[in-house]
Formats: sequence, structure tokens, C-alpha cells
Amino acid sequence: MKEKEILSRAVDLVKNARGKLEVVAKVSVSNLEELSIAYTPGVAEPTRQVRDNHALQFQYTSRASMLAIVTDGSAVLGLGNIGPEAAMVVMEGKGAMLKHFAGADPVPLCLSTQDPEEIIKVVKAVEPSFGFIFLEDISAPRCFYILDRLTRELSIPVFHDDQDGTAISLCAAITNAMRILGHKLRDKRVVINGAGAAGLATAGLLRTLGAQDIVLCDIQGALSKNTPNLDEYRAAFAMTTNSRGVGTLTEALRGADILIGLSVANVVSQDMVRAMNKDAAVFCLANPNPEILPTDAAAAGARFTGCGRFDYPNTINNLHAFPGVVRGTLDAGAKHITTGMKLAAVRAISSFVSDDQLKDDYLMPNALDPRLTARVAAAVAEAAGREGADGS
Amino acid sequence: MKEKEILSRAVDLVKNARGKLEVVAKVSVSNLEELSIAYTPGVAEPTRQVRDNHALQFQYTSRASMLAIVTDGSAVLGLGNIGPEAAMVVMEGKGAMLKHFAGADPVPLCLSTQDPEEIIKVVKAVEPSFGFIFLEDISAPRCFYILDRLTRELSIPVFHDDQDGTAISLCAAITNAMRILGHKLRDKRVVINGAGAAGLATAGLLRTLGAQDIVLCDIQGALSKNTPNLDEYRAAFAMTTNSRGVGTLTEALRGADILIGLSVANVVSQDMVRAMNKDAAVFCLANPNPEILPTDAAAAGARFTGCGRFDYPNTINNLHAFPGVVRGTLDAGAKHITTGMKLAAVRAISSFVSDDQLKDDYLMPNALDPRLTARVAAAVAEAAGREGADGS
Repeated sequence: MKEKEILSRAVDLVKNARGKLEVVAKVSVSNLEELSIAYTPGVAEPTRQVRDNHALQFQYTSRASMLAIVTDGSAVLGLGNIGPEAAMVVMEGKGAMLKHFAGADPVPLCLSTQDPEEIIKVVKAVEPSFGFIFLEDISAPRCFYILDRLTRELSIPVFHDDQDGTAISLCAAITNAMRILGHKLRDKRVVINGAGAAGLATAGLLRTLGAQDIVLCDIQGALSKNTPNLDEYRAAFAMTTNSRGVGTLTEALRGADILIGLSVANVVSQDMVRAMNKDAAVFCLANPNPEILPTDAAAAGARFTGCGRFDYPNTINNLHAFPGVVRGTLDAGAKHITTGMKLAAVRAISSFVSDDQLKDDYLMPNALDPRLTARVAAAVAEAAGREGADGS
Repeated sequence: MKEKEILSRAVDLVKNARGKLEVVAKVSVSNLEELSIAYTPGVAEPTRQVRDNHALQFQYTSRASMLAIVTDGSAVLGLGNIGPEAAMVVMEGKGAMLKHFAGADPVPLCLSTQDPEEIIKVVKAVEPSFGFIFLEDISAPRCFYILDRLTRELSIPVFHDDQDGTAISLCAAITNAMRILGHKLRDKRVVINGAGAAGLATAGLLRTLGAQDIVLCDIQGALSKNTPNLDEYRAAFAMTTNSRGVGTLTEALRGADILIGLSVANVVSQDMVRAMNKDAAVFCLANPNPEILPTDAAAAGARFTGCGRFDYPNTINNLHAFPGVVRGTLDAGAKHITTGMKLAAVRAISSFVSDDQLKDDYLMPNALDPRLTARVAAAVAEAAGREGADGS
């Protein structure tokens, strides 16, 4: 299907269906007997029981699977700060995926404020109705602060897909490239272009996996301890990175092993890829058009290529990660999403590709395979139980 | 069914179904083609269109029918201030009714704050995701202030069922009692016992219908301009009421024509009813046990009796009102619910009982009749169009 046809059918779809989500009742109230049980006077009894034991709310209401997709519309797709009204179109699409792949009950909460303190206050206020907070399309560095605060202050799990969903999927692809090479990540030089939500989260998760040489570049070049005017999150990273003191993306890529693109279209040239090390991996995820097309990167000598799109090999998409993470976290009744749970997701995704299947152009499983979600969910839930994130 | 069995089945119902509401997707994302249309890259096009024209959000997303049931759990059923966790059981029951009777997409938002300014802030923040704000079980006088502020500051309709749902239903019953008697409301002496959310709203709507002699009683007796320590809402009413200066409910009822009970069980005696005027109407709605049982009121000489329950004649329940009000308001795309729309609902409910059907013990239509919702909705939508509440 041509892109033009996709776009036109996308408009028809939402027009005809009037959006993508609907709330339905799981119980019937069509006659007096049903009404007396489901509402008055019956409802008083389960209500009294929950009043006396709040934990019962997770059994007697849909809270356990109710998931708020929270956005302020500040960093939506490649469109930027488009506000809550337009963001709702995207949130409903994400909601349809969270329903289909994770079995959650997704409710878009598109907020009219972009003040981090206000957003935190609102999410804390609605917490008693939800079992999961799914942050989406909130711009950096505000998203780091909001995620940190909510993780500390809520008693339900909080996940920012643009950070950890992307990071988990990328780490799985990199794990499998290392598997083919038989190399260790700690011996590799990693360059991440794009120091936003996904860039910083990916850098953090790669370190947990053992990466020791990471250079993070933004539009002004490679971050280092000398870079002025960094927010606290980028500054903390910059202090311990870029030990060789490179200044530009081009310099950083000279001799690098892995390039991760989380920025904008067409900022990586074939010459840059040619300057990379042997067996280089070029995973460029700018959407819909990557930093360099996988075919161009391969022609310039990259051994492994991948992007976020489904029409190239080695699709690296947060769809690999978030359904299983959400499902597993809900299944475990976990109160937080720990690093151990994220690493379990990375391992479940990478190991879903068997030794037989694993090839330079088959690093990642099919993101639409429902068995993948189940496998990731089981691994995440198991890790939650092991780490006590289930509150036990 | 015995009450004990109802309560036990009510617990089984929520346990087995894990609550009463579910969010489902109206579009499929089970293969790559569907995903490319419903999510990436397709979603970008309707998103861009909404960014450029916010009004399209009501066509391209489910916002137009998404209804937030907002509570702080401060005045739930007869249970009082039980908090947001237990309140969610009730909100989901109400949600099931809003789905079944009004076709709305109800989302419970049970808030962890009871500060009116915080509640207002939260509702304003989530406004871009919803087409309707349905306030529920918020205690008086906070509910008056919250409703006032939200009505003024939001561009979507706000309805507090405990105020106007009850008031509309009561006014319909009283209208039909007057219809049988051939009398005018302005010649009648009305006593309302209970100066909470429903009491004040009912007093206000009865005045709009022509009532001129209303005495409002609370636990300390009849309000008057001499009553100390009233909040601004009760004070405003007390200034213009109780012209005879009665002090107690018993005094107020001497020679009264209409008693409306919106307080607690068993506070009205048969002697009080005996002291009322000829052709008295006693509509006592305390739930589940009224101020006086309809049978006891009739035995003491009341001509018209009614209560909120479905197991007595003349059921007077907000279920008569809120589905049609919600549906009609959504259908009209109204931005506010005006007094004219509420009066249209009163007329639609009362006139739904034909002259042939109308009897002392048949003042109200069957609240479960789906044609009632349709009739009320049409009347409310028509009034909205006439009054310009549709924003036109």
C-alpha cells in the first residue's frame, strides 16, 4: 500500500468509527433484578468491603487492568508540540494496540497542562482509578523528571514508552548482534545520536548490560563534561561519558562499532558509516524516515542494519517491548518496573529468536507474534516476583 | 429476591467479572496493514488535521462520547465519606448504567484529593479527553462550588447527578401530581427535608417551575434568614424562604402540601403527615430506607406517595433523568446544561405518562423503558438547540 493510500484510509478509519476506543459494560443492567444487583441496593455490599479493605478494589473493580495513557501532547510522533487535542488521535491508536497486544483497558488522558508539577499532581489525583500509568509523548527533559517523581510517589507502576520501550527493543537487537559476533558489549564503542527521552534511556540500559564506551550526541555534537547548559539528566550522563573527548558525530563514529539513531531523518551519511569499525551495527530509528536508510548503511559497509519500520529487515520497534512489559507487570501486580524487569524483557525478546533463526538480517522477532508478548510478559512477571516488585 | 441474596450476588458479580467496565478497541490492529493504518505511519494524517482544526477531535476520536464520572468519594450512597477506592465500585455501577441507558463511554475518575481547588484543577487538566463531566457523590456544599466553577470554566457540559438528576425526577413527579389535582404549584406549600446537594437543587428547580412557598429543613430545623453559620449557597436560599418563620420540621409540615425527603431514614412520623394539608404528596427518597415508608405515609392520609425504590409505586429515581439528559446533551453537542434543558427533561418525563395512565399511584414512567431515555434526550437536545447551548 502506498503511503498516500495509508494516510487517506487512516482518516476514513477514525471518521467512520468515531475514534478507536469504546468503554463497554461487563455486566447487564437491562431489568430490575440486574439493576438491583449491579447497582442499587446491591452495590453497597462490595463497596463496604472495599471501604474496609482497599486491596479488594483490585478484585472488585476493573482498576487492576485500567491503564491511563498520559500525555501533554508536547512531543507527538515527529510532529512535536501539537497539544492534547491532536495527541488524542495518537493515544487512541496506542490504546488499540495496548488492548490488542497487552489486554489492558486503556484510557487516554490528554492533559491541558504542560507544567511538570501540574502533570504530577493530576496523575497522583487519578491514581485510585488505575492499575498502570503509561506515559507517552512527553518531551525531554521534562519526561525524566515526571517519570522519576511518579515512580517514587505512586504505588502503581509507571512506564514511559518513549524511554524504556525503545531502549528495551534496541538492547534486544544489540544483544542479538553480539550473539552472532560472539563479542561482548563491554568491548564495543557505542554512539547514540539523539539525547532525548529514548537516547538517555537507551544509554542507561546499555550500561546496565555492560557497555562501557558510549558517546551521546545531540544537535550540537557529542556531550562531554565540558558541554555547557545541560539539564541535570544529560549532565549526569555527560560527566561519565566520551572519555576520548570527541566533538562531533563524525568524529564519534570514527572506529565506532554501534550507531543508534534516535534523532531525525537523514543526518547520517554513508561516509560516516564507512568510517565505522568492521562488523558495524547501524540501528537508526527516526520515524518515519531514519537517520540513514538501512540499504544505504549496508552499502557503506555496515554489517547489521535496522530501523523502526516494518518494511525493512530487523524492525526495532517499541511494539516488541511495551505489550509484554505491561502485561507482565499487571500479571505480577507489581508496584514498580525495576531495571531487572526491563532486562528480563530484553532477554525474552532477544532469546525469542532461536539460534537457527538468528541471522544478520534476522535479529528481531516478529513484533506482531502474540507468543512474543506472552513470553516477554512471563519473563517480566517472573523478574518482578524475584525482585519483590510485586510488593511481596 | 431477598436483600441478603442481592448483596451476596452483588459481590459475586464484581468478583467474577473483575469490575463492571472494560475498554475495547473499535478498530483492529492484528496485522501489519491494519497497524499501518490505525497506528504508524497512518495516524499522522488525522493527527495533523486535528492539530490544524481542534473541532475535528470530536469526529476523529471518541471524545464526543467519552464521559468522566468524577468523584472524590466524599458522599457515597448512604455510606458517607468512604474515599476513592471504595467509591470506584459505585462509579462502575453508574458507568454500566450510563453505557446501557445513555450510550456514553463512561470512565470513572476517583480522585485522591477532596480539596475543591484541586478537584477543579484536575478536571480542567483532563478536559481535552472528554465530552462530558459527570460529577457524582461529592459532598455539599463543596459540590455546589465545584459545579459552578467547572460550568463556568470548561467548554464541555458538566452535570452533578446528585443535584440535578434527583431534582429533575422529583419535579416530574410533582408536575404529575399537580396534573391530577388540576392545581398550580405556586399555590402549594412545599417542605424539603434535607439541605444537601439534592435538596438545594430541587428547591431551585421547583422555584423555576413556579413554587413560591418552600421551606428547607436540615438536621437543625427549618432554614431562615436568622439561621447562623450557613454556607453561601444555603444562606442565599435561606434569605428568601420560610416567610412564616417556622422553626422545626414538625411546624413546617403543619398545613403543607408537599413533603420532599432527601435526608435519612425514619425521620418523618405518621403524626407529621397527618398534620399536612388535604391531597398531600409525600415523596421521601432517603436510600435504601426512606424518611417514612410510602405505605405508612398513605395510612396517615397522604394522597400521593413515592420513594426512590423500585419495589413501591411512584418510583422517583434519578435514573428517570440522567440517561436522557446525558444523551440529549451529547447529541446536541451542547457546551452547557441550561435550566431550559433541565425543564425540558422534567416535561418529557412527566408527559411520558399519558392522561390515560396517570393515576395517584402512577405518576412516573418506568425508568427502565428505553423509549423514555429517547424521549428525554430528544427534548433536551431540542432545548439545547433553542437556547444556543449547542454553541451555535
